[in-house]
Amino acid sequence: METAQKPIGIFDSGIGGLTVVKKIIEYLPNENIVYFGDTARVPYGSKSNDTIIEYSIQDTEFLLTHDVKAIVVACNTASSMAIPALKEKFNLPIISMIEPGSQKAAEKTKSGKIGVIGTRSTISNKAYSKQLKLINREFEILERACPLFVPLAEEGWIDHPATFQIASEYLTELKYEGVDTLILGCTHYPILRKTIQKVMGESVQLIDSGVAAAYNVQEILIRKNLLNTSDSSPFRKFYVSDIPSQFKNLAELFLGMPVEKVTKVDLEEFFKKRQG
Amino acid sequence: METAQKPIGIFDSGIGGLTVVKKIIEYLPNENIVYFGDTARVPYGSKSNDTIIEYSIQDTEFLLTHDVKAIVVACNTASSMAIPALKEKFNLPIISMIEPGSQKAAEKTKSGKIGVIGTRSTISNKAYSKQLKLINREFEILERACPLFVPLAEEGWIDHPATFQIASEYLTELKYEGVDTLILGCTHYPILRKTIQKVMGESVQLIDSGVAAAYNVQEILIRKNLLNTSDSSPFRKFYVSDIPSQFKNLAELFLGMPVEKVTKVDLEEFFKKRQG
Repeated sequence: METAQKPIGIFDSGIGGLTVVKKIIEYLPNENIVYFGDTARVPYGSKSNDTIIEYSIQDTEFLLTHDVKAIVVACNTASSMAIPALKEKFNLPIISMIEPGSQKAAEKTKSGKIGVIGTRSTISNKAYSKQLKLINREFEILERACPLFVPLAEEGWIDHPATFQIASEYLTELKYEGVDTLILGCTHYPILRKTIQKVMGESVQLIDSGVAAAYNVQEILIRKNLLNTSDSSPFRKFYVSDIPSQFKNLAELFLGMPVEKVTKVDLEEFFKKRQG
Repeated sequence: METAQKPIGIFDSGIGGLTVVKKIIEYLPNENIVYFGDTARVPYGSKSNDTIIEYSIQDTEFLLTHDVKAIVVACNTASSMAIPALKEKFNLPIISMIEPGSQKAAEKTKSGKIGVIGTRSTISNKAYSKQLKLINREFEILERACPLFVPLAEEGWIDHPATFQIASEYLTELKYEGVDTLILGCTHYPILRKTIQKVMGESVQLIDSGVAAAYNVQEILIRKNLLNTSDSSPFRKFYVSDIPSQFKNLAELFLGMPVEKVTKVDLEEFFKKRQG
């Protein structure tokens, strides 16, 4: 296969990364896509750094067997922990959520006061803070972990009063401190965007890291002359390490379109066979 | 080691099972205990049946290397899926959450109208309903999955207004239908007991399956002459497959006492070494 026609490989700890796939399909409708969601080991956000790095390497190795031309780490937790290890180990473009999201926020802020919300491990790792300070060390950054947002999104309680109440509690300080830009540092959070916007007020700019990352993929493919210009209709393959009962409904909520076929991969078996 | 002095092996998908350990220590203060929490693969509640059975077998095999005299499956999801497979494969007493919790509810109900709450997979598997119908097929059983209760307990939002609001939504129908007994079919739920009781009203009896299971362990050890009557002070060993940042605080909230030492086990490595 010609290099440009090779698929983009995208992985996430579960289904959250499908909000990023949605944006990549929107911006790059011609691209072949292979998605891997590690639904058997979800969530990464509550796991240790070593475990997250190990899983991210395995996820990438699986995608590489599909001969992908680039890797998108469509998971903020994995992006915040595993990018250096992945870049050291693998020799192809690797796109994280952190740099594009930070870059976009840096362009949008006027006051220089930027809020970041994410899972406990993304926030405690200060991934966005570090990146934003690299761009401009004058930025004032306020971070807040919002652990209930993922289960609320997966429960589909998008406009629920409890979601509003929980969001109000999580976001009060960021709002009170007057951030003018808020990074949604978890791929689940765009599902709750309306409620988050309502709590923060219309004047605060919400930055969807997945959107910023999709732009970044486009830029990199253009720069490296890897854009797929073939006329044939693209394939989109979805692999997961487990298929729980609610999977199909949730996947369609996150992807915003029907998911026709999803293949289950037993990662342990998969690596055993490769070694054997 | 004499058989009675051998430890009780207890496993859970994570830390929820520590509410059961707490009760076992209360009722059987003399017993040695080995606990395994599969924190690297938590939660089981959103995974498929096959995956839950496979993980439960691995968890049991790990405990057996500690020469345990009985296995307590301190996880309702694993209890609802994996008990037949475990009983077929292993030849020692295996205590589930489902039978003791159902038995207790059957003794307590006067109206015969029993409510059951749990994770999505415990509820969709109808484990408690089936067991209760075996006891008395006249029972009227109402089940409700409450997926947000686990993250709320892990967030420590025990008396939070959002917890009350969410509990009110989940439990409205059970309350309206007039159940007189409600089974807490998830080891996390005792943490939210006060709020659940407040929503249901004082007249509804809450059944903590972990308490019922701890009684059951005691009965079985007495019946099989396996009660530890040694004078030496018992050991309690805690193993987990991952140690996330919040682990210690949460473990102490769930266990109700300090956790001095927790050992991390890499299950994959562990089985590889055993085979090699």
